[in-house]
Amino acid sequence: MTSATVLETVSTQKCFGGMQGVYRHEAKETGCTMRFAVFLPPQAAAGTVPALYYLAGLTCTEENFTVKAGAQRVAAELGIALIAPDTSPRGLGYPGEDDAYDFGTGAGFYVDATETPWRDGYRMYSYITKELPALINASFPVDPARVGIFGHSMGGHGALTIALKNPGAYRSVSAFAPIVSPMRCPWGEKALTGYLGVDRANWRAYDATALIEDRGWDGPAILVDQGTADPFLERELKPELLREACAAKGVKLDLRMQEGYDHSYFFIATFVEDHLRHHARHL
Amino acid sequence: MTSATVLETVSTQKCFGGMQGVYRHEAKETGCTMRFAVFLPPQAAAGTVPALYYLAGLTCTEENFTVKAGAQRVAAELGIALIAPDTSPRGLGYPGEDDAYDFGTGAGFYVDATETPWRDGYRMYSYITKELPALINASFPVDPARVGIFGHSMGGHGALTIALKNPGAYRSVSAFAPIVSPMRCPWGEKALTGYLGVDRANWRAYDATALIEDRGWDGPAILVDQGTADPFLERELKPELLREACAAKGVKLDLRMQEGYDHSYFFIATFVEDHLRHHARHL
Repeated sequence: MTSATVLETVSTQKCFGGMQGVYRHEAKETGCTMRFAVFLPPQAAAGTVPALYYLAGLTCTEENFTVKAGAQRVAAELGIALIAPDTSPRGLGYPGEDDAYDFGTGAGFYVDATETPWRDGYRMYSYITKELPALINASFPVDPARVGIFGHSMGGHGALTIALKNPGAYRSVSAFAPIVSPMRCPWGEKALTGYLGVDRANWRAYDATALIEDRGWDGPAILVDQGTADPFLERELKPELLREACAAKGVKLDLRMQEGYDHSYFFIATFVEDHLRHHARHL
Repeated sequence: MTSATVLETVSTQKCFGGMQGVYRHEAKETGCTMRFAVFLPPQAAAGTVPALYYLAGLTCTEENFTVKAGAQRVAAELGIALIAPDTSPRGLGYPGEDDAYDFGTGAGFYVDATETPWRDGYRMYSYITKELPALINASFPVDPARVGIFGHSMGGHGALTIALKNPGAYRSVSAFAPIVSPMRCPWGEKALTGYLGVDRANWRAYDATALIEDRGWDGPAILVDQGTADPFLERELKPELLREACAAKGVKLDLRMQEGYDHSYFFIATFVEDHLRHHARHL
């Protein structure tokens, strides 16, 4: 099997009757070793299962969701595989790649960069939508036709934009506290300028609200949870912009403002069961 | 309120409708600042709730259980407060305190040391059984008469020995992969020699199997989960020694060997719901 030559197992640990694994491989898109986590539910021993991709936020790796969200319990019940990639290339040695928490390492923003030097390795969009799924589909008992995607913060932006740009590929999408319009917040403006250059016309391809305006979405309702005590709510996240875009295009959005919750994995853990059940209804 | 002058809030974060807090205080027993975590379930807003203490294993702090075990979900349903202390004093400056993962910092073993210099600050037994509960009871809406205790590995040893030595104080006890007889394993022999000296007669007061032999236990059945793929099973943990001691004294023990599980928090997360429900039946 081809995958056996490129996929290296870092660890496997039994969890809720299934298996939590961490793997690494030499990725062509990013030009470096990439790690990712896969949880296989017990049902994967008897056949293929749907795959749900989770994209993490700034500073995260494949580990945060895997150890903090408590999603394996529900995935084991529902028979869903959980795929958690890293958030950027690592160790490419580009000048400034480790200077800030919100650009470069740990902050790939799920785009294919066009600016030098980032365009060589900062190709997280192609990595997440093409290279990684090809490897996953060849290496694990998942059904390539039953795929959903969700994420948190920068990864919520990633999940929304990737689903909207590939409507046939992802049956369902949801997000926790997503950046809904990187064109209109400091985190996004910094990242898109750095990765895509100063021409804002090129940014629309990676802005969930612009994609809603340009393409709509006829999949099932988009589920979004947002804590009202999230310190990034007003400056960076702005869920009202997603609500307005969806309303204007007749896109179904289930935006839930969760009273008193912040931006942490305690918030994600509280509502992750709802998200998995949302995806399971469509996978 | 006295507690207001000694207890400092590090963080509070909403979680499953309750509140996950981290606190610190200047502890008399250990002579240093100690941190601990408290999860208050939603029911604590309306009155006192039972308290379940969790003692962590080697190298851990108050954080590991709090972010990895997924226990808040069940505690919120059952109306139980979760108290997670640190595992040792920190920063006392004793020679060698940071030289090894299994002695000194992060490895207090829940004893009151008698050897110099450890006897001054390595008083985790008194801290966990007296100073911390007094602070918790004065500061949070918990019922001092409804208290249970559980833990993992070194903390499983701590939970078992503390419950056995204080049968009126703890209504229920359970453990994940506990060190059941520190007198008879390398981790325990090193720690007890260092903290208590070479006279093994003094070690029996901190050995769960010896305490079963000397005192028995007429509380509800002791629940113990142990993974069969735990790399420390044969050399350090030896659950059969607890089974033998309980059988000889007629102590009820529910020892569950869990096929394929290791020593990690993936194992703990898988079975933590069973443990909380076990405690809830007696609290």
